[in-house]
Amino acid sequence: MKKSIFIFPLLVLLYSCTTQQNDSSKADEVVVVQDPLSAWNDASTKQSIISYVNAVTDSASADFVPVADRIAVFDNDGTLWCEQPAYTQLIFVLDRIREMAPSHPEWSKQQPFKAAIEGDLDGLAESGMEGLMTLLMHTHSGVTTDEFKEIVESWMKNAKHPRYNVTYDQLVYQPMIELLHYLRAHNFKTYIVSGGGVEFMRPVTDRIYGIPAEQVIGSTVKTVFEYNDGNPVIKKLPEIDFIDDKELKPVAINKIIGKKPIFAAGNSDGDLAMLQWSASSDHKSLQLYVHHTDSVREYAYDRNSHVGKLDKGLDQALNDGWAVADMEKDWKRVFSFEK
Amino acid sequence: MKKSIFIFPLLVLLYSCTTQQNDSSKADEVVVVQDPLSAWNDASTKQSIISYVNAVTDSASADFVPVADRIAVFDNDGTLWCEQPAYTQLIFVLDRIREMAPSHPEWSKQQPFKAAIEGDLDGLAESGMEGLMTLLMHTHSGVTTDEFKEIVESWMKNAKHPRYNVTYDQLVYQPMIELLHYLRAHNFKTYIVSGGGVEFMRPVTDRIYGIPAEQVIGSTVKTVFEYNDGNPVIKKLPEIDFIDDKELKPVAINKIIGKKPIFAAGNSDGDLAMLQWSASSDHKSLQLYVHHTDSVREYAYDRNSHVGKLDKGLDQALNDGWAVADMEKDWKRVFSFEK
Repeated sequence: MKKSIFIFPLLVLLYSCTTQQNDSSKADEVVVVQDPLSAWNDASTKQSIISYVNAVTDSASADFVPVADRIAVFDNDGTLWCEQPAYTQLIFVLDRIREMAPSHPEWSKQQPFKAAIEGDLDGLAESGMEGLMTLLMHTHSGVTTDEFKEIVESWMKNAKHPRYNVTYDQLVYQPMIELLHYLRAHNFKTYIVSGGGVEFMRPVTDRIYGIPAEQVIGSTVKTVFEYNDGNPVIKKLPEIDFIDDKELKPVAINKIIGKKPIFAAGNSDGDLAMLQWSASSDHKSLQLYVHHTDSVREYAYDRNSHVGKLDKGLDQALNDGWAVADMEKDWKRVFSFEK
Repeated sequence: MKKSIFIFPLLVLLYSCTTQQNDSSKADEVVVVQDPLSAWNDASTKQSIISYVNAVTDSASADFVPVADRIAVFDNDGTLWCEQPAYTQLIFVLDRIREMAPSHPEWSKQQPFKAAIEGDLDGLAESGMEGLMTLLMHTHSGVTTDEFKEIVESWMKNAKHPRYNVTYDQLVYQPMIELLHYLRAHNFKTYIVSGGGVEFMRPVTDRIYGIPAEQVIGSTVKTVFEYNDGNPVIKKLPEIDFIDDKELKPVAINKIIGKKPIFAAGNSDGDLAMLQWSASSDHKSLQLYVHHTDSVREYAYDRNSHVGKLDKGLDQALNDGWAVADMEKDWKRVFSFEK
């Protein structure tokens, strides 16, 4: 990662692009008003989603799936919201370190804190996964779950994305929001299964995705219950409990949901095991990869990216005929604020 | 625990008792036909449940709680189903050891297996928690989650309770089943939060309680995802992942549900932290303890019991005015098969 990711000369380009987008979509307005997937172009990906949902929800179909088994799981970073130039939660961690720095003068000479405070992403990269975990532990522990929720909510209201200049909770993909609504309208239960921290996501998921806290699965730190003289709290400890990524995604799905999803969407190799697990359902199932192909409206990255690497997953998707949402070709609109 | 717990001279007494029960309830039949809590006597416990539910579900009430926050959590052993003379899952473990014994001739000379095979509960007790864990590991691992589900389902169909001579899935408390239905009819989301194994409960919870797999929280062993050449499985490992008891119940609730329950029911000190957590809700909340006071229709035990000890919890319930369901006085009927 380079420092330059925080400085975006693309802002002007972006605005001109979204203006174009608005112009071109005007002609469609009357036609698409009733279309629940109106931010999707009428290409094969959209059609395969619709055909699939029709097949499993039509009680006369051989592929009919009872409502209780209509479990749909979605990765979050890069699948439902933007994960570039860095994971939203990493930006939060860095902001939080800077906010906490005045109470920790020792950090100014100590890595990885020094790099975090100075926004020195090269230095941070040098500190590796261990450095990131150290920062995570210091910013996600020592507080109660209620306090942490308030910290996240406040940050979400104020922090802005360096390129789009909107709060991070606005950087959700409009076609995916529509897809969530569309599935729920067909009695699917929609879950998030993300490598992100569960308590970082929950304060916003209901508002931005219509997904309640109890349908959000993510990574966790260990916590402890304290009775606290009749005012019990749950405190976050500086210790990793579970990293909800790769082969641990199906493990978490089995542990928490206890049913095999019939619909799974992701965007990286970290989601591959979850998609494989879903593909092994006895029911007809659908696997969807979001492929970041649009460097103009969003970001283009896949096989060689540090964030959201999609390599083995793309091979299997092509091999097994999974659905691939090519952002540039399949999505009429990327973000709602483009309109 | 004594060997004699497997031999029940009370069977005759039980039958005479249930016959009485049927006779006495006939007169009420017309009156109670519309009562969703008809297995409850019209005593204060029933009334406090009804008053509470009315208060939080009436949109004109100052205590109104939005549907999204109507989370109700229930312990399972001793709260929803019978836990005497031993936890259902322990009976399952012993049966399973006996079933597996022919392939393990070495067990006939090796504790705790020898005791398990011989039904020597004194010997088992001597082997302590470590012995029980050894048995648990051997009966709950080395199989896939799908295989384990089939084993549990088959056992549930065949094994019978030594006293009541019915399958264990029939030993559910009728008043609690009604309570679950009553809460759901008022848009509560009902969860099980039990020390029992989550994969031991899930095969039956939907059928016997109307609680789907994804609303069952329990203890877990570690599992691993294996791609298995395109036929992925999740295998159960001989290692404890999480024991969902005592202070870890609110921890699990926070981790998996992410909302504080407004209704919590248990029957032992193992549920106390969960009830305390619920009692600290910003919303009006209700805590319910099932008190096993009925030695005739079920079992009488509390402060000095090895199974389902209720001591500190009873003190706090009395102190804080929590609801206590006195089985003998509050429950018109205990089991559905009494009818």
